[in-house]
Amino acid sequence: MRIGFYQFSPAFGDIEKNLEMLRGSFAKELPHILVLPELAFTGYNFVNREEAIKYAEEIPGPLFEEIRSLSKEKGVAISTGFLERVGDNIYNSAVFVSPEGDYYVYRKVHLFYKEKEIFSPGDRLFVFEYRDAKIGMLICFDWIFPEAMRTLTLMGAEVILHHANLVLPFCQDAMITRSIENRVFIVTANRTGVEDRGGERYVFTGRSQVVAPGGKLLLRVGDEVTGVFSVDIDPDIAGDKNINRFNHLIMDRRQDIYRC
Amino acid sequence: MRIGFYQFSPAFGDIEKNLEMLRGSFAKELPHILVLPELAFTGYNFVNREEAIKYAEEIPGPLFEEIRSLSKEKGVAISTGFLERVGDNIYNSAVFVSPEGDYYVYRKVHLFYKEKEIFSPGDRLFVFEYRDAKIGMLICFDWIFPEAMRTLTLMGAEVILHHANLVLPFCQDAMITRSIENRVFIVTANRTGVEDRGGERYVFTGRSQVVAPGGKLLLRVGDEVTGVFSVDIDPDIAGDKNINRFNHLIMDRRQDIYRC
Repeated sequence: MRIGFYQFSPAFGDIEKNLEMLRGSFAKELPHILVLPELAFTGYNFVNREEAIKYAEEIPGPLFEEIRSLSKEKGVAISTGFLERVGDNIYNSAVFVSPEGDYYVYRKVHLFYKEKEIFSPGDRLFVFEYRDAKIGMLICFDWIFPEAMRTLTLMGAEVILHHANLVLPFCQDAMITRSIENRVFIVTANRTGVEDRGGERYVFTGRSQVVAPGGKLLLRVGDEVTGVFSVDIDPDIAGDKNINRFNHLIMDRRQDIYRC
Repeated sequence: MRIGFYQFSPAFGDIEKNLEMLRGSFAKELPHILVLPELAFTGYNFVNREEAIKYAEEIPGPLFEEIRSLSKEKGVAISTGFLERVGDNIYNSAVFVSPEGDYYVYRKVHLFYKEKEIFSPGDRLFVFEYRDAKIGMLICFDWIFPEAMRTLTLMGAEVILHHANLVLPFCQDAMITRSIENRVFIVTANRTGVEDRGGERYVFTGRSQVVAPGGKLLLRVGDEVTGVFSVDIDPDIAGDKNINRFNHLIMDRRQDIYRC
Protein backbone atom coordinates (compact mmCIF):
# COMPACT_ATOMS: atom_id res chain seq x y z
CA MET A 1 0.00 0.00 0.00
CA ARG A 2 1.26 3.46 -0.84
CA ILE A 3 0.32 6.18 1.64
CA GLY A 4 1.01 9.88 1.62
CA PHE A 5 0.10 13.36 2.65
CA TYR A 6 -0.58 16.70 1.02
CA GLN A 7 1.23 19.46 2.91
CA PHE A 8 0.17 22.95 1.92
CA SER A 9 -1.03 26.31 3.18
CA PRO A 10 -4.82 26.51 2.79
CA ALA A 11 -6.31 29.88 1.79
CA PHE A 12 -8.48 30.98 4.71
CA GLY A 13 -12.17 30.75 3.97
CA ASP A 14 -11.73 29.87 0.28
CA ILE A 15 -12.91 26.30 -0.17
CA GLU A 16 -12.90 26.46 -3.97
CA LYS A 17 -9.32 27.74 -4.13
CA ASN A 18 -8.16 25.01 -1.75
CA LEU A 19 -9.91 22.37 -3.82
CA GLU A 20 -8.19 23.79 -6.90
CA MET A 21 -4.81 23.49 -5.17
CA LEU A 22 -5.56 19.88 -4.24
CA ARG A 23 -6.59 19.06 -7.82
CA GLY A 24 -3.35 20.63 -9.08
CA SER A 25 -1.27 18.60 -6.65
CA PHE A 26 -2.36 15.28 -8.17
CA ALA A 27 -0.18 15.59 -11.25
CA LYS A 28 2.80 13.88 -9.70
CA GLU A 29 2.04 10.97 -7.43
CA LEU A 30 -0.91 8.81 -6.62
CA PRO A 31 -0.78 6.97 -3.29
CA HIS A 32 -3.62 4.67 -2.31
CA ILE A 33 -4.47 6.90 0.65
CA LEU A 34 -3.81 10.63 0.71
CA VAL A 35 -4.04 12.42 4.07
CA LEU A 36 -4.73 16.14 4.27
CA PRO A 37 -4.33 18.52 7.22
CA GLU A 38 -6.96 19.46 9.78
CA LEU A 39 -9.58 21.91 8.45
CA ALA A 40 -7.79 21.76 5.12
CA PHE A 41 -10.42 23.60 3.06
CA THR A 42 -11.52 26.41 5.34
CA GLY A 43 -8.42 27.39 7.27
CA TYR A 44 -8.18 27.20 11.04
CA ASN A 45 -8.20 30.55 12.78
CA PHE A 46 -11.86 31.47 13.12
CA VAL A 47 -12.56 34.58 15.16
CA ASN A 48 -15.56 32.93 16.80
CA ARG A 49 -18.21 30.27 16.46
CA GLU A 50 -20.46 32.49 14.36
CA GLU A 51 -17.78 32.92 11.73
CA ALA A 52 -16.91 29.22 11.70
CA ILE A 53 -20.47 28.05 11.29
CA LYS A 54 -20.70 29.86 7.95
CA TYR A 55 -18.13 27.47 6.50
CA ALA A 56 -19.55 24.31 8.05
CA GLU A 57 -21.41 21.69 6.06
CA GLU A 58 -23.49 18.66 6.83
CA ILE A 59 -22.43 15.45 5.17
CA PRO A 60 -23.12 14.92 2.30
CA GLY A 61 -22.60 18.58 1.36
CA PRO A 62 -20.97 20.27 -1.64
CA LEU A 63 -17.34 20.01 -0.42
CA PHE A 64 -17.87 16.36 0.48
CA GLU A 65 -19.26 15.67 -2.99
CA GLU A 66 -16.27 17.39 -4.60
CA ILE A 67 -13.89 15.24 -2.57
CA ARG A 68 -15.86 12.12 -3.34
CA SER A 69 -15.82 12.78 -7.06
CA LEU A 70 -12.11 13.65 -6.97
CA SER A 71 -11.43 10.41 -5.06
CA LYS A 72 -13.37 8.41 -7.64
CA GLU A 73 -11.82 10.18 -10.60
CA LYS A 74 -8.25 9.69 -9.37
CA GLY A 75 -8.74 6.31 -7.69
CA VAL A 76 -7.28 7.70 -4.45
CA ALA A 77 -8.79 7.44 -0.99
CA ILE A 78 -8.75 10.93 0.52
CA SER A 79 -8.81 11.57 4.27
CA THR A 80 -9.16 15.23 5.11
CA GLY A 81 -10.02 17.55 7.93
CA PHE A 82 -13.18 19.58 7.37
CA LEU A 83 -15.63 21.74 9.27
CA GLU A 84 -18.72 19.67 9.95
CA ARG A 85 -22.18 20.83 10.94
CA VAL A 86 -24.65 18.47 12.60
CA GLY A 87 -27.84 20.28 13.51
CA ASP A 88 -26.83 23.20 15.73
CA ASN A 89 -23.38 21.79 16.52
CA ILE A 90 -20.18 22.17 14.58
CA TYR A 91 -17.25 19.76 14.78
CA ASN A 92 -13.58 19.80 13.90
CA SER A 93 -13.92 16.62 11.84
CA ALA A 94 -12.10 14.46 9.35
CA VAL A 95 -13.68 12.40 6.60
CA PHE A 96 -12.13 9.40 4.87
CA VAL A 97 -13.60 8.94 1.39
CA SER A 98 -12.78 5.91 -0.78
CA PRO A 99 -12.92 5.79 -4.59
CA GLU A 100 -15.73 3.26 -4.13
CA GLY A 101 -17.77 5.94 -2.37
CA ASP A 102 -17.55 4.63 1.19
CA TYR A 103 -16.81 7.19 3.88
CA TYR A 104 -16.10 7.48 7.61
CA VAL A 105 -16.32 10.62 9.73
CA TYR A 106 -14.20 11.22 12.84
CA ARG A 107 -14.89 14.17 15.15
CA LYS A 108 -11.94 15.56 17.09
CA VAL A 109 -12.18 14.32 20.65
CA HIS A 110 -9.62 16.59 22.38
CA LEU A 111 -10.19 20.24 21.46
CA PHE A 112 -7.23 22.62 21.68
CA TYR A 113 -7.28 26.12 23.10
CA LYS A 114 -10.05 28.34 21.64
CA GLU A 115 -11.48 25.44 19.66
CA LYS A 116 -13.40 24.83 22.88
CA GLU A 117 -15.35 28.05 22.21
CA ILE A 118 -16.13 27.05 18.63
CA PHE A 119 -16.57 23.29 18.28
CA SER A 120 -18.34 20.50 20.09
CA PRO A 121 -16.05 17.59 21.02
CA GLY A 122 -16.42 14.23 19.33
CA ASP A 123 -17.40 11.23 21.39
CA ARG A 124 -16.01 8.26 19.49
CA LEU A 125 -12.73 6.64 18.48
CA PHE A 126 -13.09 3.90 15.89
CA VAL A 127 -11.27 1.70 13.40
CA PHE A 128 -12.36 0.70 9.89
CA GLU A 129 -10.93 -1.42 7.09
CA TYR A 130 -9.71 -0.23 3.73
CA ARG A 131 -7.75 -2.40 1.28
CA ASP A 132 -7.20 -4.96 4.05
CA ALA A 133 -5.61 -2.34 6.33
CA LYS A 134 -7.17 -1.37 9.65
CA ILE A 135 -7.33 2.40 9.82
CA GLY A 136 -7.83 4.81 12.73
CA MET A 137 -8.14 8.59 12.57
CA LEU A 138 -6.95 11.36 14.89
CA ILE A 139 -6.86 15.13 14.63
CA CYS A 140 -3.98 17.30 15.81
CA PHE A 141 -4.03 17.78 19.64
CA ASP A 142 -5.38 14.24 20.11
CA TRP A 143 -1.68 13.28 19.88
CA ILE A 144 -0.78 14.50 23.37
CA PHE A 145 -3.04 12.00 25.14
CA PRO A 146 -1.40 8.56 24.93
CA GLU A 147 -4.78 7.01 25.66
CA ALA A 148 -6.12 8.07 22.25
CA MET A 149 -3.69 6.12 20.08
CA ARG A 150 -3.57 3.31 22.63
CA THR A 151 -7.33 2.96 22.30
CA LEU A 152 -7.09 2.81 18.50
CA THR A 153 -4.28 0.25 18.78
CA LEU A 154 -6.34 -1.92 21.11
CA MET A 155 -9.18 -1.65 18.58
CA GLY A 156 -6.81 -3.14 16.02
CA ALA A 157 -5.62 -0.06 14.11
CA GLU A 158 -2.54 -0.65 11.96
CA VAL A 159 -2.38 2.77 10.31
CA ILE A 160 -3.23 6.07 12.04
CA LEU A 161 -4.24 8.97 9.81
CA HIS A 162 -3.37 12.10 11.79
CA HIS A 163 -4.74 15.36 10.40
CA ALA A 164 -2.95 18.34 11.91
CA ASN A 165 -2.62 22.10 12.12
CA LEU A 166 0.32 22.00 14.50
CA VAL A 167 1.60 25.21 16.05
CA LEU A 168 3.78 23.64 18.76
CA PRO A 169 7.10 22.00 17.88
CA PHE A 170 6.73 18.76 19.86
CA CYS A 171 4.33 16.51 18.04
CA GLN A 172 6.43 15.21 15.18
CA ASP A 173 9.04 13.69 17.47
CA ALA A 174 6.38 12.53 19.93
CA MET A 175 4.75 10.53 17.14
CA ILE A 176 7.94 8.50 16.97
CA THR A 177 7.37 7.59 20.63
CA ARG A 178 3.73 6.77 19.86
CA SER A 179 4.77 4.39 17.11
CA ILE A 180 7.29 2.73 19.43
CA GLU A 181 4.77 2.22 22.22
CA ASN A 182 1.97 1.03 19.88
CA ARG A 183 3.79 -0.42 16.84
CA VAL A 184 1.53 1.30 14.33
CA PHE A 185 2.09 3.34 11.19
CA ILE A 186 1.33 7.04 11.67
CA VAL A 187 0.80 9.54 8.87
CA THR A 188 0.84 13.10 10.19
CA ALA A 189 -0.40 15.57 7.56
CA ASN A 190 0.38 19.03 8.85
CA ARG A 191 -0.10 22.40 7.18
CA THR A 192 2.28 25.27 6.55
CA GLY A 193 1.82 29.03 6.51
CA VAL A 194 0.56 31.64 8.96
CA GLU A 195 -2.92 32.76 9.99
CA ASP A 196 -3.13 36.09 11.81
CA ARG A 197 -6.73 36.97 12.60
CA GLY A 198 -8.70 38.38 15.52
CA GLY A 199 -5.67 38.88 17.73
CA GLU A 200 -4.38 35.31 17.39
CA ARG A 201 -1.38 34.56 15.22
CA TYR A 202 -0.62 30.94 14.37
CA VAL A 203 2.52 29.78 12.60
CA PHE A 204 2.02 26.22 11.40
CA THR A 205 5.03 23.96 11.61
CA GLY A 206 4.81 21.66 8.57
CA ARG A 207 7.22 18.71 8.84
CA SER A 208 4.53 16.23 7.82
CA GLN A 209 5.77 12.69 8.18
CA VAL A 210 5.17 8.95 7.99
CA VAL A 211 6.45 6.78 10.84
CA ALA A 212 6.60 2.97 10.82
CA PRO A 213 6.09 0.58 13.77
CA GLY A 214 9.01 0.76 16.18
CA GLY A 215 9.59 4.47 15.59
CA LYS A 216 11.17 4.31 12.14
CA LEU A 217 10.85 7.64 10.35
CA LEU A 218 10.05 6.74 6.73
CA LEU A 219 9.46 10.24 5.42
CA ARG A 220 9.53 13.77 6.80
CA VAL A 221 9.39 16.98 4.80
CA GLY A 222 10.46 20.52 5.67
CA ASP A 223 8.47 23.11 7.56
CA GLU A 224 7.53 25.17 4.50
CA VAL A 225 7.53 22.72 1.60
CA THR A 226 4.29 22.16 -0.30
CA GLY A 227 3.12 19.11 -2.19
CA VAL A 228 2.12 15.47 -2.20
CA PHE A 229 4.64 13.02 -0.75
CA SER A 230 4.16 9.30 -0.31
CA VAL A 231 5.87 6.06 0.62
CA ASP A 232 5.14 2.33 0.39
CA ILE A 233 4.12 0.59 3.59
CA ASP A 234 3.04 -2.91 4.59
CA PRO A 235 0.25 -2.44 7.16
CA ASP A 236 0.46 -6.11 8.21
CA ILE A 237 3.71 -5.35 10.01
CA ALA A 238 1.70 -3.40 12.58
CA GLY A 239 -0.13 -6.57 13.56
CA ASP A 240 3.02 -7.92 15.22
CA LYS A 241 3.34 -6.42 18.70
CA ASN A 242 6.33 -8.53 19.74
CA ILE A 243 9.46 -6.55 20.62
CA ASN A 244 11.48 -9.75 21.07
CA ARG A 245 10.61 -13.34 21.93
CA PHE A 246 9.87 -12.41 25.55
CA ASN A 247 8.06 -9.07 25.21
CA HIS A 248 4.71 -8.24 23.62
CA LEU A 249 3.68 -4.59 23.78
CA ILE A 250 0.05 -5.31 24.52
CA MET A 251 0.15 -8.55 26.49
CA ASP A 252 2.89 -7.19 28.78
CA ARG A 253 0.63 -4.36 29.95
CA ARG A 254 -0.10 -4.54 33.67
CA GLN A 255 -3.71 -3.50 33.84
CA ASP A 256 -3.87 -5.11 37.26
CA ILE A 257 -1.82 -2.23 38.68
CA TYR A 258 -2.39 0.73 36.36
CA ARG A 259 -4.74 3.41 37.60
CA CYS A 260 -5.43 5.29 34.39
CA MET B 1 16.00 21.10 44.92
CA ARG B 2 19.11 19.84 43.17
CA ILE B 3 18.76 16.48 41.47
CA GLY B 4 21.27 14.39 39.59
CA PHE B 5 22.47 11.05 38.39
CA TYR B 6 25.62 8.98 38.56
CA GLN B 7 26.41 7.51 35.15
CA PHE B 8 29.06 4.83 35.19
CA SER B 9 29.96 1.32 34.12
CA PRO B 10 29.46 -1.06 37.06
CA ALA B 11 31.92 -3.90 37.46
CA PHE B 12 29.96 -7.11 37.03
CA GLY B 13 29.47 -9.01 40.26
CA ASP B 14 31.74 -6.75 42.34
CA ILE B 15 29.54 -4.87 44.78
CA GLU B 16 32.43 -3.54 46.84
CA LYS B 17 34.22 -2.11 43.82
CA ASN B 18 31.04 -0.41 42.63
CA LEU B 19 30.48 1.06 46.08
CA GLU B 20 34.05 2.34 45.99
CA MET B 21 33.43 4.02 42.63
CA LEU B 22 30.28 5.64 44.01
CA ARG B 23 32.14 6.92 47.08
CA GLY B 24 34.85 8.34 44.83
CA SER B 25 32.29 10.11 42.66
CA PHE B 26 31.06 12.28 45.53
CA ALA B 27 34.04 14.58 45.52
CA LYS B 28 32.57 17.03 43.07
CA GLU B 29 28.88 17.68 43.47
CA LEU B 30 26.20 16.98 46.02
CA PRO B 31 22.63 17.07 44.75
CA HIS B 32 19.76 16.50 47.17
CA ILE B 33 18.77 13.34 45.30
CA LEU B 34 21.24 11.18 43.39
CA VAL B 35 19.83 8.56 41.01
CA LEU B 36 21.86 5.51 40.02
CA PRO B 37 21.28 3.02 37.20
CA GLU B 38 19.35 -0.24 37.35
CA LEU B 39 21.23 -3.04 39.13
CA ALA B 40 24.04 -0.55 39.72
CA PHE B 41 26.06 -2.68 42.14
CA THR B 42 25.89 -6.15 40.63
CA GLY B 43 25.82 -5.60 36.89
CA TYR B 44 22.99 -6.74 34.66
CA ASN B 45 23.81 -9.68 32.45
CA PHE B 46 23.25 -12.73 34.62
CA VAL B 47 23.56 -16.04 32.85
CA ASN B 48 20.58 -17.44 34.74
CA ARG B 49 18.50 -17.18 37.89
CA GLU B 50 20.91 -19.32 39.90
CA GLU B 51 23.76 -16.93 39.23
CA ALA B 52 21.67 -13.84 39.98
CA ILE B 53 20.36 -15.12 43.29
CA LYS B 54 23.92 -15.27 44.65
CA TYR B 55 24.10 -11.47 44.46
CA ALA B 56 20.62 -10.78 45.83
CA GLU B 57 20.00 -9.43 49.29
CA GLU B 58 17.00 -8.96 51.52
CA ILE B 59 16.46 -5.49 52.87
CA PRO B 60 18.07 -4.48 55.21
CA GLY B 61 21.19 -6.28 53.97
CA PRO B 62 24.86 -5.27 53.81
CA LEU B 63 24.68 -3.28 50.55
CA PHE B 64 21.58 -1.47 51.79
CA GLU B 65 23.38 -0.56 55.02
CA GLU B 66 26.37 0.73 53.07
CA ILE B 67 24.10 2.94 50.98
CA ARG B 68 22.21 4.11 54.03
CA SER B 69 25.41 5.09 55.83
CA LEU B 70 26.77 6.80 52.72
CA SER B 71 23.50 8.70 52.34
CA LYS B 72 23.64 9.82 55.97
CA GLU B 73 27.33 10.71 55.83
CA LYS B 74 26.97 12.81 52.68
CA GLY B 75 23.50 14.20 53.36
CA VAL B 76 22.33 12.95 49.95
CA ALA B 77 19.26 10.85 49.22
CA ILE B 78 20.37 7.93 47.05
CA SER B 79 17.99 6.06 44.75
CA THR B 80 19.59 3.04 43.17
CA GLY B 81 18.75 -0.14 41.35
CA PHE B 82 19.67 -3.30 43.25
CA LEU B 83 19.04 -7.02 43.21
CA GLU B 84 16.48 -7.81 45.88
CA ARG B 85 15.66 -11.14 47.44
CA VAL B 86 12.34 -11.73 49.19
CA GLY B 87 12.05 -15.31 50.38
CA ASP B 88 12.49 -17.50 47.30
CA ASN B 89 11.86 -14.66 44.83
CA ILE B 90 14.31 -12.18 43.41
CA TYR B 91 13.36 -8.79 42.02
CA ASN B 92 14.91 -6.16 39.79
CA SER B 93 14.34 -3.44 42.40
CA ALA B 94 15.26 0.12 43.25
CA VAL B 95 15.60 1.56 46.73
CA PHE B 96 15.37 5.23 47.67
CA VAL B 97 17.28 5.94 50.89
CA SER B 98 17.17 9.31 52.61
CA PRO B 99 19.87 10.75 54.91
CA GLU B 100 17.26 10.54 57.68
CA GLY B 101 17.16 6.76 57.18
CA ASP B 102 13.74 6.46 55.51
CA TYR B 103 13.56 4.17 52.52
CA TYR B 104 11.17 3.02 49.78
CA VAL B 105 11.53 -0.06 47.58
CA TYR B 106 10.14 -0.30 44.04
CA ARG B 107 10.13 -3.62 42.16
CA LYS B 108 10.30 -3.44 38.37
CA VAL B 109 6.84 -4.08 37.00
CA HIS B 110 7.60 -4.66 33.29
CA LEU B 111 10.43 -7.16 32.88
CA PHE B 112 12.49 -7.01 29.68
CA TYR B 113 13.64 -9.97 27.62
CA LYS B 114 15.45 -12.66 29.65
CA GLU B 115 14.74 -10.85 32.90
CA LYS B 116 11.51 -12.85 32.74
CA GLU B 117 13.56 -16.01 33.35
CA ILE B 118 15.37 -14.48 36.32
CA PHE B 119 13.16 -12.07 38.25
CA SER B 120 9.64 -11.97 39.58
CA PRO B 121 7.69 -8.88 38.44
CA GLY B 122 6.71 -6.18 40.90
CA ASP B 123 3.06 -5.53 41.61
CA ARG B 124 2.92 -1.92 42.76
CA LEU B 125 3.46 1.62 41.49
CA PHE B 126 3.56 4.22 44.25
CA VAL B 127 4.45 7.81 45.10
CA PHE B 128 6.15 9.12 48.26
CA GLU B 129 7.22 12.52 49.56
CA TYR B 130 10.73 13.74 50.09
CA ARG B 131 11.67 17.36 50.83
CA ASP B 132 8.14 18.43 49.82
CA ALA B 133 8.49 16.78 46.41
CA LYS B 134 6.28 13.89 45.32
CA ILE B 135 8.50 11.16 43.95
CA GLY B 136 7.75 8.11 41.78
CA MET B 137 10.17 5.41 40.69
CA LEU B 138 10.49 3.38 37.49
CA ILE B 139 13.08 0.96 36.17
CA CYS B 140 14.27 0.86 32.56
CA PHE B 141 11.73 -0.93 30.27
CA ASP B 142 8.82 0.45 32.31
CA TRP B 143 9.29 3.52 30.06
CA ILE B 144 7.72 1.95 26.98
CA PHE B 145 4.29 1.57 28.59
CA PRO B 146 2.67 5.02 28.78
CA GLU B 147 0.33 3.68 31.45
CA ALA B 148 3.19 3.38 33.96
CA MET B 149 4.15 7.04 34.11
CA ARG B 150 0.53 8.09 33.63
CA THR B 151 -0.38 6.09 36.73
CA LEU B 152 2.40 7.76 38.74
CA THR B 153 1.27 11.17 37.46
CA LEU B 154 -2.32 10.49 38.49
CA MET B 155 -0.98 9.47 41.91
CA GLY B 156 0.56 12.94 42.14
CA ALA B 157 4.19 12.29 41.19
CA GLU B 158 6.16 15.42 40.34
CA VAL B 159 9.56 13.82 39.87
CA ILE B 160 10.16 10.40 38.31
CA LEU B 161 13.39 8.61 39.22
CA HIS B 162 14.11 6.30 36.30
CA HIS B 163 16.85 3.74 36.89
CA ALA B 164 18.04 2.27 33.60
CA ASN B 165 20.33 -0.18 31.85
CA LEU B 166 19.22 0.85 28.36
CA VAL B 167 20.41 -1.12 25.36
CA LEU B 168 17.96 0.31 22.81
CA PRO B 169 18.39 3.86 21.47
CA PHE B 170 14.80 5.10 21.82
CA CYS B 171 14.15 5.79 25.46
CA GLN B 172 15.97 9.06 26.00
CA ASP B 173 13.93 10.89 23.34
CA ALA B 174 10.76 9.07 24.35
CA MET B 175 11.16 10.46 27.88
CA ILE B 176 10.77 13.92 26.37
CA THR B 177 7.36 12.81 25.09
CA ARG B 178 6.52 11.35 28.51
CA SER B 179 7.31 14.67 30.18
CA ILE B 180 5.16 16.52 27.63
CA GLU B 181 2.17 14.23 28.13
CA ASN B 182 2.48 14.16 31.95
CA ARG B 183 4.25 17.42 32.84
CA VAL B 184 6.63 15.78 35.27
CA PHE B 185 10.37 15.91 35.86
CA ILE B 186 12.16 12.73 34.77
CA VAL B 187 15.67 11.76 35.81
CA THR B 188 16.94 8.86 33.71
CA ALA B 189 20.12 7.39 35.20
CA ASN B 190 21.55 5.03 32.61
CA ARG B 191 24.77 3.06 32.66
CA THR B 192 27.62 2.84 30.17
CA GLY B 193 29.90 -0.01 29.12
CA VAL B 194 29.44 -3.48 27.72
CA GLU B 195 28.53 -6.82 29.29
CA ASP B 196 29.25 -9.90 27.20
CA ARG B 197 28.37 -13.07 29.09
CA GLY B 198 26.62 -16.35 28.38
CA GLY B 199 26.04 -15.62 24.72
CA GLU B 200 24.33 -12.25 25.28
CA ARG B 201 26.20 -9.04 24.54
CA TYR B 202 24.71 -5.78 25.81
CA VAL B 203 26.07 -2.36 24.92
CA PHE B 204 24.58 0.20 27.29
CA THR B 205 23.74 3.56 25.78
CA GLY B 206 24.48 6.13 28.52
CA ARG B 207 23.02 9.54 27.67
CA SER B 208 21.56 9.92 31.16
CA GLN B 209 19.37 12.98 31.37
CA VAL B 210 17.00 15.23 33.30
CA VAL B 211 13.84 16.45 31.55
CA ALA B 212 11.50 19.15 32.87
CA PRO B 213 7.69 19.34 32.48
CA GLY B 214 6.77 20.18 28.91
CA GLY B 215 9.66 18.21 27.44
CA LYS B 216 12.49 20.60 28.25
CA LEU B 217 15.82 18.81 28.26
CA LEU B 218 17.74 20.27 31.21
CA LEU B 219 20.76 18.03 31.09
CA ARG B 220 21.97 15.15 28.94
CA VAL B 221 25.44 13.62 28.97
CA GLY B 222 27.27 11.54 26.38
CA ASP B 223 27.04 7.81 25.82
CA GLU B 224 30.37 6.97 27.45
CA VAL B 225 30.97 9.72 30.01
CA THR B 226 31.22 8.77 33.67
CA GLY B 227 30.42 10.87 36.75
CA VAL B 228 27.87 12.70 38.85
CA PHE B 229 25.88 15.41 37.08
CA SER B 230 23.10 17.50 38.58
CA VAL B 231 20.78 20.42 37.99
CA ASP B 232 18.43 22.60 40.03
CA ILE B 233 14.72 21.93 39.63
CA ASP B 234 11.52 23.25 41.19
CA PRO B 235 9.25 20.21 41.64
CA ASP B 236 6.22 22.45 42.26
CA ILE B 237 6.15 23.30 38.56
CA ALA B 238 5.00 19.74 37.88
CA GLY B 239 1.84 20.38 39.87
CA ASP B 240 0.54 22.66 37.12
CA LYS B 241 -1.01 20.54 34.36
CA ASN B 242 -2.36 23.48 32.38
CA ILE B 243 -1.01 23.76 28.84
CA ASN B 244 -2.86 27.04 28.30
CA ARG B 245 -5.96 28.62 29.80
CA PHE B 246 -8.23 26.17 27.96
CA ASN B 247 -6.33 22.90 28.24
CA HIS B 248 -5.46 20.81 31.29
CA LEU B 249 -3.52 17.61 30.58
CA ILE B 250 -5.42 15.54 33.12
CA MET B 251 -8.87 17.08 33.14
CA ASP B 252 -9.04 17.01 29.33
CA ARG B 253 -8.66 13.23 29.30
CA ARG B 254 -11.69 11.51 27.81
CA GLN B 255 -12.04 8.46 29.99
CA ASP B 256 -15.62 8.19 28.78
CA ILE B 257 -14.35 7.00 25.40
CA TYR B 258 -10.91 5.46 26.02
CA ARG B 259 -10.72 1.68 26.06
CA CYS B 260 -7.35 1.15 27.66
